[in-house]
Amino acid sequence: MASTYEGNTQAYAVKSDTSDLTPWTFERRQLRSDDVAIEILFCGVCHSDLHVARNDWGFSQYPLVPGHEIVGRVTAIGNQVSQYKVGDMVGVGCMVDSCRECSACNEGLEQYCLEGMTMTYASPDRHDGSLTQGGYSDKIVTSERFVVSIPDALDPAEAAPLLCAGITTYSPLRHYGVKAGDKVGIIGMGGLGHMGIKFAKSMGCEVTLFTRSEAKVAEARENGVDHVIVSSDDKQMAAATETFDFLLDTVPVPHDLNPYLNTLKYDGTHILVGLIQEVDPALQGGNLVMKRRVLAGSLIGGMAETQEVLNYCAEHGIGCDIEMIDIQNINDAWERMQQGKVKYRFVIDMQSLKNTQ
Amino acid sequence: MASTYEGNTQAYAVKSDTSDLTPWTFERRQLRSDDVAIEILFCGVCHSDLHVARNDWGFSQYPLVPGHEIVGRVTAIGNQVSQYKVGDMVGVGCMVDSCRECSACNEGLEQYCLEGMTMTYASPDRHDGSLTQGGYSDKIVTSERFVVSIPDALDPAEAAPLLCAGITTYSPLRHYGVKAGDKVGIIGMGGLGHMGIKFAKSMGCEVTLFTRSEAKVAEARENGVDHVIVSSDDKQMAAATETFDFLLDTVPVPHDLNPYLNTLKYDGTHILVGLIQEVDPALQGGNLVMKRRVLAGSLIGGMAETQEVLNYCAEHGIGCDIEMIDIQNINDAWERMQQGKVKYRFVIDMQSLKNTQ
Repeated sequence: MASTYEGNTQAYAVKSDTSDLTPWTFERRQLRSDDVAIEILFCGVCHSDLHVARNDWGFSQYPLVPGHEIVGRVTAIGNQVSQYKVGDMVGVGCMVDSCRECSACNEGLEQYCLEGMTMTYASPDRHDGSLTQGGYSDKIVTSERFVVSIPDALDPAEAAPLLCAGITTYSPLRHYGVKAGDKVGIIGMGGLGHMGIKFAKSMGCEVTLFTRSEAKVAEARENGVDHVIVSSDDKQMAAATETFDFLLDTVPVPHDLNPYLNTLKYDGTHILVGLIQEVDPALQGGNLVMKRRVLAGSLIGGMAETQEVLNYCAEHGIGCDIEMIDIQNINDAWERMQQGKVKYRFVIDMQSLKNTQ
Repeated sequence: MASTYEGNTQAYAVKSDTSDLTPWTFERRQLRSDDVAIEILFCGVCHSDLHVARNDWGFSQYPLVPGHEIVGRVTAIGNQVSQYKVGDMVGVGCMVDSCRECSACNEGLEQYCLEGMTMTYASPDRHDGSLTQGGYSDKIVTSERFVVSIPDALDPAEAAPLLCAGITTYSPLRHYGVKAGDKVGIIGMGGLGHMGIKFAKSMGCEVTLFTRSEAKVAEARENGVDHVIVSSDDKQMAAATETFDFLLDTVPVPHDLNPYLNTLKYDGTHILVGLIQEVDPALQGGNLVMKRRVLAGSLIGGMAETQEVLNYCAEHGIGCDIEMIDIQNINDAWERMQQGKVKYRFVIDMQSLKNTQ
């Protein structure tokens, strides 16, 4: 196949902070020497998409094409590209560039780049300053250093959310050395939480879901958890005092960490992967001090680890539970995502974009 | 010397939550087989003494003898005691017992005993339920497992605060593997903070003091810090963004952690050793998540590590900076301690107790 490339791109974009998505056509950049062009087949729908669409984090500019759980096929490559060839099934996650020279980049922790990573959408490109645009579109152009290979054993649609929801939950479990026999609590069972359950179970942990909703107990059991604690039930929470080694907290809105911290043993670790707003009600210092507990955060994962999680999922038969939608239904999907009414990740079938006028 | 023992004890006690200390005479327990009786020579004055005297933490009962930085000589031993003999210079710190059987105790982390440690004062004794009474007195009786040896190279009075202020700051530096070349920030320069500076310097770190007060800058330099940041100066704080590996936070009252967290590099660690109340203003989750930072707590240290810090101080010529007082001046000393007007720890010369009628 010839390595030709034509930048005209169809997409769904947010034109203002109303957060409604509508069709938009724009030009993707011409290939730089280390770029691959990708025909997007699938793109997962992440809660961050909605946050940025609404400018909740203050840096959004419009028009804005969300989407950072991207899977597709390479259609063209720059003249220095060595890892990928036309036809390869590849993925692009939450970032598309970094300084590539700092201590973090050299450690394979590009997400903590000292200069700041370039995000897949709504970030200024490091070379020409243009805004990056994400995966709710039919193509994307990215440096091969920020592209991963999708193993053949993975269903490409189920693999898409691994690039954010997957790596975000896998990385802290690895970083903190979670191991077989550990008692792990997963807080929340949405896109991230259900992946956390799969990973912790695959690592041999005894897994408990914390959920506010009695209605999710049976569903959690179907997902393979060993125990469920209804977090709104003070008695259940008290009965779990000092029983956990590790908590993976996927809740993206302010919540009370104190009752969860008290379920950790001494030296236990509570990891935030969803909460970037304030901790409310207030954290009690004593809940850390008196038992040498750790409260920490974790942000996606580096490129090497993103490839690792894909390989891990291929090896362990892990995919994300998805509901496939057409791009024309994206506004409804966002509404349902906000209400938590999806099991557990929407993935857009980008073929549907061809039906857009 | 004969190993005889007479329990009649002189002390200064708090009789109610007014927190005034007045003379009190009571009987120390008769020696159990593993007990040593100690004639107290020196006792450090810790801010916790005041918190418990005032029942700030809700568990105090009166009369109450504070004091958990105790140094003295063994005057009698129980018939099974093997580590100490009459005449030995020994210390007793913040705890005098634990279950001795749980995973924490077996790891040498008695302070995190799953049944709860028995504190040196204001705790029910595990055997007879009587309240433990602390070191503002002329003697104490304690199981040898909770006694440490004071190395000859240490000044006994300067060694006393090592049993709380010393071990509290040494333990987290060791637990988190702080090493030569690390950039360490010490927050606050009181009894704990000035020990943190000594330890971090002795470990070869580049040490910065964070202080609210411009007036402490010169004093900090005299104490050997490499840099001082006035934390109330937003410009100085901003200039320190992402520069520290480790923060040792000795501030015992609610304060804003967010500006400090932002001075940590990715993977940096902020340790609370003073704050057991709420974090106020609210912690921003993003300050942990976006840079994989760690916020954690640490409580004193286990018995083996308490011996280790004494040996370390003997080896490195480290003592606490103290101001010696007579017991009759204790109420004034507490007042000054509250106002931060001590460099940096009061130590009571217990010989002065003999002048009490």
